Amino acid sequence: MDQVANRLNRLHGYYFEDLEVGMIDAFAKTITEADILAFSGTSGDTNPVHLNEEFAENTIFGGRIAHGILTASLISTVIGTKLPGPGCIYVNQSLKFKAPVRAGDTVTAEVEIVELIPEKKFIKLRTVCIVGGKVVIDGEATIMVPSRADA
Amino acid sequence: MDQVANRLNRLHGYYFEDLEVGMIDAFAKTITEADILAFSGTSGDTNPVHLNEEFAENTIFGGRIAHGILTASLISTVIGTKLPGPGCIYVNQSLKFKAPVRAGDTVTAEVEIVELIPEKKFIKLRTVCIVGGKVVIDGEATIMVPSRADA
Repeated sequence: MDQVANRLNRLHGYYFEDLEVGMIDAFAKTITEADILAFSGTSGDTNPVHLNEEFAENTIFGGRIAHGILTASLISTVIGTKLPGPGCIYVNQSLKFKAPVRAGDTVTAEVEIVELIPEKKFIKLRTVCIVGGKVVIDGEATIMVPSRADA
Repeated sequence: MDQVANRLNRLHGYYFEDLEVGMIDAFAKTITEADILAFSGTSGDTNPVHLNEEFAENTIFGGRIAHGILTASLISTVIGTKLPGPGCIYVNQSLKFKAPVRAGDTVTAEVEIVELIPEKKFIKLRTVCIVGGKVVIDGEATIMVPSRADA
């Protein structure tokens, strides 16, 4: 392997052959006012429940909440950077929004391998986001993971 | 209705009674390098397929791509700002990632009401993201929409 290939390979995550049911990894981050502002800009989602305290106080949330997809993005962070990590391909994701997240909340996104599908090089992950011990997003992801044979 | 309530009500989206199967709305936005950078920061997702051209060139994508959840965030934008708009509550979302999106691509997120579930005040939407006529994300959302009776 030449030096460039070797350097790029160091950035690569797990290969399919490295993975087993039950492997778990996590990423955690505090969601701040700055995240909500930046996410409103990149998404264009200026829903007043995220940006207008006066409006949000009069909803069932009783105040501003973070965008659900902002919280969900931390799931993609675990998958794309840790388990299985760089080189994998996002096939699908389901998200059940169970409870709101507010600025100042620290979200832990946790993924666990629940199934390996060798004929497609797919893995299924249970994906949850947790705040203070409570599941705020539940769901499942399907990921395609390169084989060492193709590396 | 007093002046404050009246002003807040003007920010509110559709109520459940206003909705019918077949209603469609859309939001479109060009995904830029700046969006990818900002999204990497808010999500913490520094996967080199988004940030490292040298690494990304050696994947099946042949170059850097936008985060799938960044593209998906435009679906939330249509739902939260247009159909049904402010006041609604995100219950769940499924996402099938069909093709990559690159900086410079203009993404149209389109949602269509496919089912009304009056007993729960839920609606189901088909949700797609399109680039140049091609579906890059397909999926479905369930949304809770307030009733006029509760407003």
